[in-house]
Amino acid sequence: MDRPRRRVVRMPTDAKPGRVQRAPEGFLTQQQIAAVQSGRRDFLRGAFVAASAAVAGTAIAQPLRGSDFKGESEILELPEHTKGLGQPVAARGYGSPSQFEQNLQRRESPGLTRVSAASVSFAPLQALFGIITPNGLHFERHHQGWWDIDPSKHRLMVMGMVKQPKVYTMDDLMRLPSVSRMHFIECGANTGMEWGNVAVPTVQYTHGMLSCCEYTGVLLSTLLDDCGFDRKNGKFILAEGADGSSMTRTISMDRALDDVMVAWAMNGEMLRPENGYPIRLVAPGLQGVSWVKWLRRIEVGDQPWATKDETLHYVDLMPDGVHRQYSSIQECKSVITTPSGGQTILDKGFHNVTGLAWSGRGRIKRVDVSFDGGRNWRTARLENPEMPKCLRRFNIDWVWNGAPAILQSRAIDETGYVQPKINQLRAVRGSRSIYHNNAIQSWKVAETGEVSNVQVY
Amino acid sequence: MDRPRRRVVRMPTDAKPGRVQRAPEGFLTQQQIAAVQSGRRDFLRGAFVAASAAVAGTAIAQPLRGSDFKGESEILELPEHTKGLGQPVAARGYGSPSQFEQNLQRRESPGLTRVSAASVSFAPLQALFGIITPNGLHFERHHQGWWDIDPSKHRLMVMGMVKQPKVYTMDDLMRLPSVSRMHFIECGANTGMEWGNVAVPTVQYTHGMLSCCEYTGVLLSTLLDDCGFDRKNGKFILAEGADGSSMTRTISMDRALDDVMVAWAMNGEMLRPENGYPIRLVAPGLQGVSWVKWLRRIEVGDQPWATKDETLHYVDLMPDGVHRQYSSIQECKSVITTPSGGQTILDKGFHNVTGLAWSGRGRIKRVDVSFDGGRNWRTARLENPEMPKCLRRFNIDWVWNGAPAILQSRAIDETGYVQPKINQLRAVRGSRSIYHNNAIQSWKVAETGEVSNVQVY
Repeated sequence: MDRPRRRVVRMPTDAKPGRVQRAPEGFLTQQQIAAVQSGRRDFLRGAFVAASAAVAGTAIAQPLRGSDFKGESEILELPEHTKGLGQPVAARGYGSPSQFEQNLQRRESPGLTRVSAASVSFAPLQALFGIITPNGLHFERHHQGWWDIDPSKHRLMVMGMVKQPKVYTMDDLMRLPSVSRMHFIECGANTGMEWGNVAVPTVQYTHGMLSCCEYTGVLLSTLLDDCGFDRKNGKFILAEGADGSSMTRTISMDRALDDVMVAWAMNGEMLRPENGYPIRLVAPGLQGVSWVKWLRRIEVGDQPWATKDETLHYVDLMPDGVHRQYSSIQECKSVITTPSGGQTILDKGFHNVTGLAWSGRGRIKRVDVSFDGGRNWRTARLENPEMPKCLRRFNIDWVWNGAPAILQSRAIDETGYVQPKINQLRAVRGSRSIYHNNAIQSWKVAETGEVSNVQVY
Repeated sequence: MDRPRRRVVRMPTDAKPGRVQRAPEGFLTQQQIAAVQSGRRDFLRGAFVAASAAVAGTAIAQPLRGSDFKGESEILELPEHTKGLGQPVAARGYGSPSQFEQNLQRRESPGLTRVSAASVSFAPLQALFGIITPNGLHFERHHQGWWDIDPSKHRLMVMGMVKQPKVYTMDDLMRLPSVSRMHFIECGANTGMEWGNVAVPTVQYTHGMLSCCEYTGVLLSTLLDDCGFDRKNGKFILAEGADGSSMTRTISMDRALDDVMVAWAMNGEMLRPENGYPIRLVAPGLQGVSWVKWLRRIEVGDQPWATKDETLHYVDLMPDGVHRQYSSIQECKSVITTPSGGQTILDKGFHNVTGLAWSGRGRIKRVDVSFDGGRNWRTARLENPEMPKCLRRFNIDWVWNGAPAILQSRAIDETGYVQPKINQLRAVRGSRSIYHNNAIQSWKVAETGEVSNVQVY
């Protein structure tokens, strides 16, 4: 039962030249890998002494030779940047990443859909840190492409079972009481390929429809109050986007009044066009499709609308052929991002193993990590603050002895729910679904240090 | 004593065409302002009913005309983006802001220094939301310009009073146990012009040497432990940058062991070149100059180094002519960012007034706001989570009656310290200093709605 079966499908983009893993993951370029594998291991040596004193090995980093040390050649030969005058301030009124980070991009999985305007681009989780997703790398999922809408022309209508329907301009919205909150967003189809044993090779493609931002906007409850919604009979709201797909989603009134926002900002600045500029719905804990982008209409009603986007799409096909509908909440889940599929561990010894955990039902309380495919578990360190319906970064020390290993993480949220194994999930949900796969992810580390996606039952 | 004196100096960049305030601040373009002032006030009307029922006036937003409403022309005439196919995913592997946000930039204050490579660019606080500063808008302060250093060639040396001096590569550092934490960074000279009554016109120039990020890196204590630092005699560390200015700063060992980090990431991605790529020191609560960028050396010693950057610069000139030295901690401070200098309030009625508070000594516990130049104070709503040495966003409801008003915010931190008035600060520190001005900021709202920088004694 605990025997791993490798079912790795190598996808074309991952074999592209230039997609090598480098510094952000703590791993090196293909040239450096080759250098290491041919024997020049001196720049990455042994275990991290302070944290792994029990393991034999030299310390990380190059030790200097005491007081008579004259310095490494790199240090004695002063580089140009230590002698010259650098670039001026405001050379870039709006900055961009280093030239050495150009490979760090969101990427489409070719062939996933027939039209790139109705597709997905995945966030490079293997090279991200902490919990904030930089806006330039936030994942994308569009149904009919993205637009850069003129905010001075955009309107939001609130209507239906309300005393006073209204049309809001951006200026109307932005003078209202606002809130700022950090939340994750995950597409309901994230990790969907794993249902069918199609183990895509990297965490960018297995889990990359996941991002996390600080959002600023007005609570939807403020707008509903402003329009005098029917408190007795108004049981649901419909949110509609202004793009060509006319995305429409039902949300229950209790959620709408709880923490749903009409947001104009992400991570301190106005939303990006791909993420719904100038306004989108933020529906914490719900799957991404409910976070309607380019939001133009809110309707209050007394029953769900059963729109195309909640009957034909985003339904869970169960083993008996019935569709599970309105299954919007993203259950507790986690994944190790470093090391992860497609990366190579260059040497034995100490490594910081890190990943992300989240739950659509609230706070993450614990993350356990296994290095032997689920036989033994150790509890990881969780970063603070602890925020509901927000990513939580975990870290754990690992001393790799060079033997094959299978790494897994298992999250537990404040409701006590424990992230399931894939076979536990399949026992209930079958294997023909696309959506809502929150199973434990397994990464196999081979003796060569190569990391790949496997399924462990 | 409470009479305001206007001492506004209009700086050239603020008069530039194109620097008008628009949607991000909840205010409009110059054309829209002209339209409003010539009588077309119908798109922004009256008070926000839900929050200001006591004030006469219609609701914000355009009310619809009941069930027979056929829609506004803007809504009935479907725009192209509701009919057509939009842009594909990953059209921009690394995204950028909307074309409608192009004016939102960090800006240099011309003439502030003689060389733009040794100058400042200010963050546009008037148009930022929440607490996270997007990396593209993080303020800059360089002493000899910025560089984009190749991380594979960069090294960090730890030396001095340690058992084993070492040289770390980026890969050495990034496999160590890491932490991710949100902290503000403020230049010690932020708000420096206000010492001399030179009230620069906008919050971008008064307070824009302030930013806040989630940083990821290794605690400096981990590196010092790894090198076996002298716990008995090692009382200070020196941090040195790799740029041409050879920036060097002393930090006491207790702080170094507390929460100082060697960071490689900001807001989820690798540092930007302007902010120290590939590594910088993160010294929570200390002035920005101590957050040494392009960090290349840490030395352990038994006394402060008294380097040029802590004797000639970054010292506080006191009234008796003596310099106050090693005054590194950024004291408790706050500022209202909307409305703020250079903006125009277009109409009476409800407005969300918002700003930022921070303290180098810990958490922000309360922010009070005055609308009458400090006679009366009301307590603002603070956003969560409450994090030490991190920005905290505050919001407060305000119904503007059209009369002149003076807006102020006053922060209180967990030590009980209360942000001082400018005359209280001057009584101790004089007015010839450049650094560490944390006085209460006053914004005057004229009957026209124009907001300007004033000093209130």
